[in-house]
Amino acid sequence: MAMFDLPLAALHDYRPALDEPADFDAFWARTLTEAREHDLAASLTPYDALLPGVQVFDVRFRGYGGQPVAAWLILPTVRSGPVPCVVQFIGYGGGRGRPHEWLLWPAAGYAVLVMDSRGQGDGDTPDLAGDTTPHHSGLMTRGVLDPELYYYRRLFTDAVRAVDLAATLDDVDADRIVVAGASQGGGIAQAVAGLHRRVRAALIDVPFLTWFRRATEITDSYPYQEISVFLATNRDRIADVFATLGYFDGVHLAARGTAPALYSVGLMDDVCPPSTVFAAYNHYAGPKTIQVWPYNRHEGGGSQQAPVQLPWLRDQLT
Amino acid sequence: MAMFDLPLAALHDYRPALDEPADFDAFWARTLTEAREHDLAASLTPYDALLPGVQVFDVRFRGYGGQPVAAWLILPTVRSGPVPCVVQFIGYGGGRGRPHEWLLWPAAGYAVLVMDSRGQGDGDTPDLAGDTTPHHSGLMTRGVLDPELYYYRRLFTDAVRAVDLAATLDDVDADRIVVAGASQGGGIAQAVAGLHRRVRAALIDVPFLTWFRRATEITDSYPYQEISVFLATNRDRIADVFATLGYFDGVHLAARGTAPALYSVGLMDDVCPPSTVFAAYNHYAGPKTIQVWPYNRHEGGGSQQAPVQLPWLRDQLT
Amino acid sequence: MAMFDLPLAALHDYRPALDEPADFDAFWARTLTEAREHDLAASLTPYDALLPGVQVFDVRFRGYGGQPVAAWLILPTVRSGPVPCVVQFIGYGGGRGRPHEWLLWPAAGYAVLVMDSRGQGDGDTPDLAGDTTPHHSGLMTRGVLDPELYYYRRLFTDAVRAVDLAATLDDVDADRIVVAGASQGGGIAQAVAGLHRRVRAALIDVPFLTWFRRATEITDSYPYQEISVFLATNRDRIADVFATLGYFDGVHLAARGTAPALYSVGLMDDVCPPSTVFAAYNHYAGPKTIQVWPYNRHEGGGSQQAPVQLPWLRDQLT
Amino acid sequence: MAMFDLPLAALHDYRPALDEPADFDAFWARTLTEAREHDLAASLTPYDALLPGVQVFDVRFRGYGGQPVAAWLILPTVRSGPVPCVVQFIGYGGGRGRPHEWLLWPAAGYAVLVMDSRGQGDGDTPDLAGDTTPHHSGLMTRGVLDPELYYYRRLFTDAVRAVDLAATLDDVDADRIVVAGASQGGGIAQAVAGLHRRVRAALIDVPFLTWFRRATEITDSYPYQEISVFLATNRDRIADVFATLGYFDGVHLAARGTAPALYSVGLMDDVCPPSTVFAAYNHYAGPKTIQVWPYNRHEGGGSQQAPVQLPWLRDQLT
Amino acid sequence: MAMFDLPLAALHDYRPALDEPADFDAFWARTLTEAREHDLAASLTPYDALLPGVQVFDVRFRGYGGQPVAAWLILPTVRSGPVPCVVQFIGYGGGRGRPHEWLLWPAAGYAVLVMDSRGQGDGDTPDLAGDTTPHHSGLMTRGVLDPELYYYRRLFTDAVRAVDLAATLDDVDADRIVVAGASQGGGIAQAVAGLHRRVRAALIDVPFLTWFRRATEITDSYPYQEISVFLATNRDRIADVFATLGYFDGVHLAARGTAPALYSVGLMDDVCPPSTVFAAYNHYAGPKTIQVWPYNRHEGGGSQQAPVQLPWLRDQLT
Amino acid sequence: MAMFDLPLAALHDYRPALDEPADFDAFWARTLTEAREHDLAASLTPYDALLPGVQVFDVRFRGYGGQPVAAWLILPTVRSGPVPCVVQFIGYGGGRGRPHEWLLWPAAGYAVLVMDSRGQGDGDTPDLAGDTTPHHSGLMTRGVLDPELYYYRRLFTDAVRAVDLAATLDDVDADRIVVAGASQGGGIAQAVAGLHRRVRAALIDVPFLTWFRRATEITDSYPYQEISVFLATNRDRIADVFATLGYFDGVHLAARGTAPALYSVGLMDDVCPPSTVFAAYNHYAGPKTIQVWPYNRHEGGGSQQAPVQLPWLRDQLT
Repeated sequence: MAMFDLPLAALHDYRPALDEPADFDAFWARTLTEAREHDLAASLTPYDALLPGVQVFDVRFRGYGGQPVAAWLILPTVRSGPVPCVVQFIGYGGGRGRPHEWLLWPAAGYAVLVMDSRGQGDGDTPDLAGDTTPHHSGLMTRGVLDPELYYYRRLFTDAVRAVDLAATLDDVDADRIVVAGASQGGGIAQAVAGLHRRVRAALIDVPFLTWFRRATEITDSYPYQEISVFLATNRDRIADVFATLGYFDGVHLAARGTAPALYSVGLMDDVCPPSTVFAAYNHYAGPKTIQVWPYNRHEGGGSQQAPVQLPWLRDQLT
Repeated sequence: MAMFDLPLAALHDYRPALDEPADFDAFWARTLTEAREHDLAASLTPYDALLPGVQVFDVRFRGYGGQPVAAWLILPTVRSGPVPCVVQFIGYGGGRGRPHEWLLWPAAGYAVLVMDSRGQGDGDTPDLAGDTTPHHSGLMTRGVLDPELYYYRRLFTDAVRAVDLAATLDDVDADRIVVAGASQGGGIAQAVAGLHRRVRAALIDVPFLTWFRRATEITDSYPYQEISVFLATNRDRIADVFATLGYFDGVHLAARGTAPALYSVGLMDDVCPPSTVFAAYNHYAGPKTIQVWPYNRHEGGGSQQAPVQLPWLRDQLT
Repeated sequence: MAMFDLPLAALHDYRPALDEPADFDAFWARTLTEAREHDLAASLTPYDALLPGVQVFDVRFRGYGGQPVAAWLILPTVRSGPVPCVVQFIGYGGGRGRPHEWLLWPAAGYAVLVMDSRGQGDGDTPDLAGDTTPHHSGLMTRGVLDPELYYYRRLFTDAVRAVDLAATLDDVDADRIVVAGASQGGGIAQAVAGLHRRVRAALIDVPFLTWFRRATEITDSYPYQEISVFLATNRDRIADVFATLGYFDGVHLAARGTAPALYSVGLMDDVCPPSTVFAAYNHYAGPKTIQVWPYNRHEGGGSQQAPVQLPWLRDQLT
Repeated sequence: MAMFDLPLAALHDYRPALDEPADFDAFWARTLTEAREHDLAASLTPYDALLPGVQVFDVRFRGYGGQPVAAWLILPTVRSGPVPCVVQFIGYGGGRGRPHEWLLWPAAGYAVLVMDSRGQGDGDTPDLAGDTTPHHSGLMTRGVLDPELYYYRRLFTDAVRAVDLAATLDDVDADRIVVAGASQGGGIAQAVAGLHRRVRAALIDVPFLTWFRRATEITDSYPYQEISVFLATNRDRIADVFATLGYFDGVHLAARGTAPALYSVGLMDDVCPPSTVFAAYNHYAGPKTIQVWPYNRHEGGGSQQAPVQLPWLRDQLT
Repeated sequence: MAMFDLPLAALHDYRPALDEPADFDAFWARTLTEAREHDLAASLTPYDALLPGVQVFDVRFRGYGGQPVAAWLILPTVRSGPVPCVVQFIGYGGGRGRPHEWLLWPAAGYAVLVMDSRGQGDGDTPDLAGDTTPHHSGLMTRGVLDPELYYYRRLFTDAVRAVDLAATLDDVDADRIVVAGASQGGGIAQAVAGLHRRVRAALIDVPFLTWFRRATEITDSYPYQEISVFLATNRDRIADVFATLGYFDGVHLAARGTAPALYSVGLMDDVCPPSTVFAAYNHYAGPKTIQVWPYNRHEGGGSQQAPVQLPWLRDQLT
Repeated sequence: MAMFDLPLAALHDYRPALDEPADFDAFWARTLTEAREHDLAASLTPYDALLPGVQVFDVRFRGYGGQPVAAWLILPTVRSGPVPCVVQFIGYGGGRGRPHEWLLWPAAGYAVLVMDSRGQGDGDTPDLAGDTTPHHSGLMTRGVLDPELYYYRRLFTDAVRAVDLAATLDDVDADRIVVAGASQGGGIAQAVAGLHRRVRAALIDVPFLTWFRRATEITDSYPYQEISVFLATNRDRIADVFATLGYFDGVHLAARGTAPALYSVGLMDDVCPPSTVFAAYNHYAGPKTIQVWPYNRHEGGGSQQAPVQLPWLRDQLT
């Protein structure tokens, strides 16, 4: 059915009880402390993208475990003093791509720091953790039997460190750092908003990685389906898997977010079903607003989301 | 799921509150008055279909805006005096086809007037309105941002005029004019039953164009999906679209029908979901009966519907 | 690919070498002789279809093994003397249906005798042979390991007897009996044209049951796929199956047809691929013409085929 | 939706009211009495499968109507005295296959008697009843308009006789006969558990043939869909069909089972939806336990089911 | 099959004989002359997209028949003197979208003029021609029975006028006008390169509207399939349709192109099959190069195409 | 099309020219030498599968890089002296499973050593190499940019070491070691037959990992499609990928096989197309025979393959 999830009125009230691991905050405090023991060791190499309107740097910094993470830093060529910086996270399976794909924020007068997703995309950022637990093809179940080893522990930590990096950049106004992303990128932005005090605003579009159990019960679509397929084979590890996912569930992370957040959701989204988005949104602890797209699927607002975000963001940053 | 809509008992009680435009009746009164200012200017050209058992005429008359509309008039060759006339409307995408496709009613002793659907089928009847508002591929959204320009304003008006035409024909008994159709044809028949006092009986099979909003929320199937696809792109026009559709919604039109009506519905119909059919049926204001086909989809009664209709119709016409 | 089979020019030249069983003619002579040892025992019961324009009889006659076969006989109510009779065969899975589905030929001034297909359709004609050899779901492989037991031996024999029956009817002109059908019906018509001297003309649309081996190698579509699925399991019976099918292959039967025949074919037909149709057509031994529909699939000419057939048939019968 | 049926908690409470035919028990008593009037006439022919670890016999015995039914009897070559015997039934469309497919129970120290399903599989066991009522392609509707003629009357009777046969075998301990199967095989095992007092234990995996009406309303998947397709054409026989199915519905048969039973179910099973399985399980009248596989479809426990069954079965048999 | 079209070596040699209408050049000369009799009447309204890095104008000009066409003109805010201008055409079904979608060329230091496609996209540019011939849903067959009325006559003419417009703009260097587009946009760019002498360079990605007949014979994918579907119904108009398409076929237009062109093609592209692209490329009359993407479908080079285009274009423009 | 690849006669002649890396043999000699520098360090732990007919050991040994690899060793409980041993490899995505799935060879009187596939299946054998090059989801492209790092270097080496292990086992006759597998397992068996002198016979069913380039060009099916998807994104690495695959291509490995081999192939197999199988088979350097299954897809002989293998293997081993 077209609108297969709860009706909109029920979505606005959908605030399921949280079931957080007892040591959730300790887990993340320890994880981030360990990561910060590694120097960022950022390198910014000028990159000629044949685009004189922007200044492009090929960036490397140290993320989880001190492992190298790639990024693009792209700034408007013409600027007067430090500019706000959008730290941009990427959808599932993709990477930082090419600089010319990230011209929106520089045209708006901001810097953008586009973080590569380890082990995804074109391979500038390997995921060095190896495979020490069984997992289904894909990343959703890599290390899922142990919170210490789960893939998203590493990726979320990289993302926190990307914000750390942005705050150190000469051309960036460290008080105006924004996190942004759609789908997996929205899930990461949501996580960082819950884990990093320096976030000034969050743009969280059709977020993935949120309210895992319901997601696996209500949709057959990938990538949540990677978890279901794993559990179809590893029939005796269901409790273990959800125990791990509890440390990474967007519902728990949203409940720790305090920066203003602009969410979006598609009411026909079978990839990130609206009840999973609203579960997080309704728990989000900061000022918030949500853009509902009734007849859209996972594309959400598509190219109409930026016109919603630009004025909202301008208001947050001034 | 096979029976994805409401259970049958709930369908019989499903009578959603109407939300009619305030000027609904004025809109249609004005529309039809304007159309009737054009002379019907009917032409009936004998057509040799190599079928001696019937008499076939290739018909043209003036419909909406005085624009030409094609039709077939087919009568039993052997008849004694004026006969009842079934005005037949066509499913979405089709046209009046070939005369040999319309032999049922003549074999039953009736005339049949098969109205072409403008802009559909083989092209004997163009839709001359042009495209002055955006629309998705297909006709469901042609002009949908303005009730004056909406495609079905023109098509429903053509249909009313077809009944006007039937009443003028020498060989037709003007007191025994029936409207009939399935799917879009059923939606048109339902509309004409609500708009034209001369209708003696209505055969409304698996009607389309009925209870639009729920249809777009409960099914992904075409042609309702054309509306959803349009709204997925024209995200800011949702209210406008449904404001327009309010003038054409079968639920509102059914509530104005007074002639005896025989409906049919398939409980597994994903094209015209049963709740949309029952919404109209339960509001239908005349004597009515509905043939429920529990294990059928949009084919409804298929070739078993005619054996239901023939005796019912005989009873209405005698 | 859209036109996945041979190009049209090659199709016109496609005349594969025949590989007939040595006793092909003896097999059929014996089969038909045995069937004709049973009296036709025809019964014609008037049937009130509420269609005064036609006269309808519910027919039973004895076909293969003297087993009862149902049919409809439908004649124009107004007629002067015996009329030509079209013996109509049905597509796979269907049966004789309802009388109102067969109004074309009576409107054209002919009788039509619509033969039920044993074991198909609504069940007025059971297939009494039982299952003594393995077969995949469906009829294509029922008895396929033995020519004596193969389903189509019984069905083709029924069809020959239906022509016998037509020739005995008072209202039918026994010199003007036509066989007609599409898909399986076309395959049956083609078979009867090869097996019965009394056929005056044959209308063979998109015939099925023709050039079996190539069909199974070039298409995945049902019903030919039933054979492939059977052979996928019965891996050691491939030669046996094709040995049986040799007695029923439309290529072999067409090579024995002498009455004028009007074929049709769709160049994008994946159900009855064009090379299988042309293989039979090019071997057909009587006067012949073929209507090629380049952009059509298994629907072939659809409702445009009758306008091609009516004048051709008129010419044959006068 | 992934978990499209009732939530697990509701499934445990799902115990729909039974609607049994008044003569249900009489029907089955008569049916089995008639069958037992035929001598079993068992033949056991040694078969060289090139597998020295097991002793294989190609078996024939007389089932329904005294008609021959094939089976494999496979015993561990090394054994001391009579062994328990698992009577194994097969999933829809399959047959007894090859001996090397049935090595589990012999490796566990049991005999296995693998009963062929008449008219299914490779064809060692024809279904001799013929087709005297209409049916859709497939077996689900063969004879479905008459309980006397319904296919599963014959197949269930064969299965009861297979247990009779097992009890007569020299190498089998007649007090330790187990019935087992998955899907159709589970449905047969469930039926035999309800019809035969000699069953010591039942292994009923993802059973089919259970709670037919709901199955046809909640799933589009085959083989239940065969019934829906039949009813889509035979629109006027719905009540007749369910009247027949009442004699064969697993819910009614389960309510008569008394031997200990181990069920399994997949919560995402669209072929045998979990509510249909629980409907039977909750009515099952003997000691029972159910293995729930939350993220599995019709594969249920797959290769992890045997490790669940082996210790359970050992406990039942000692 | 993955690479379903000709092998790469054969593609490089694939140069099918042209079959141009005799009055091809006269047709287009007359068409363009008529269009140029209407003043461009360009209006450029500043538009605040909240993107200070670029200067945006909402443009209207008069295209075919003097009818209004919308466009975006986007220039780098910082520039010294007139800049080259890329006239950008859009893929099938889309429109000019939002300004923030067109930041590539301004970032590269060029102006971009993004032409709306009449009757497509969000509706800023209606197609005022009305429907005077039958057409299948979609634009591919709108007016296809008459070259004068065919949709692409209007759209190609709009595109020629867009180049005319670009040449009049103060901030644009009229000697450095580039046409660009992918899919339908590539087909339009190819057409304009063949029809307008002022084009300095052409970027033609995976072009559509090229070698129509083969396209309909080799692929089932939309939008070429719109033609096939039309011909499946309008069985008697095949020759007429291809007669019309001859005036618009990219193969004929490419043969008239003289500006340097950079093509791209995906060898697995089922939407615009590689043989149809190479047919045009091999006939293209100017300097040319083609970027082959062996493992890509209709996405062609995707985001890797711009890095190929930027240096090539820089070389053409200096 | 059903038989989409070359006709059978052409397949028997299909022997494409090899394009081996110059250092192919050196690469493998070095790889295996390095692996053998690690002690096998085999552990055999008795495992109670509740199957008294067999003796089961949970095995660990050191494979590539000295990393631990899991296996099952299953022997007939009753045996007299050392038995032949089948080293069994597994299809893509699966692992060694449960002991009760591997009862065929013990029932035939042989031992079976079932090797887990690192990083596949239930996770008893992790793939410790980490991800240092980009790869698409799935294993086909893990490390594919560097022969040293490619996943199958590790897996093939594990497999060679599994044969080494088998030869050390007390209960195994080291002169009668057989390699066997289907799909990926067939590809591994084929590789080991080319890399290990101790192989006495090879059972190679529908082998995967063979003639990679053609496979990616002729089929869209997974897992070969993983390579195509990778190349669709990594457009500039096509040559690098095939350079790596050259070291692992079954065609090159088959050309080094000398033990008798029994192949099988399905002529409709879209997963491992027949031309890729025959390319290897025709290059295979030892005595060989191939079982052709004309109407089968990737299931090949299914359960009918064992009855072919058992007598063939008995002949090889005596």
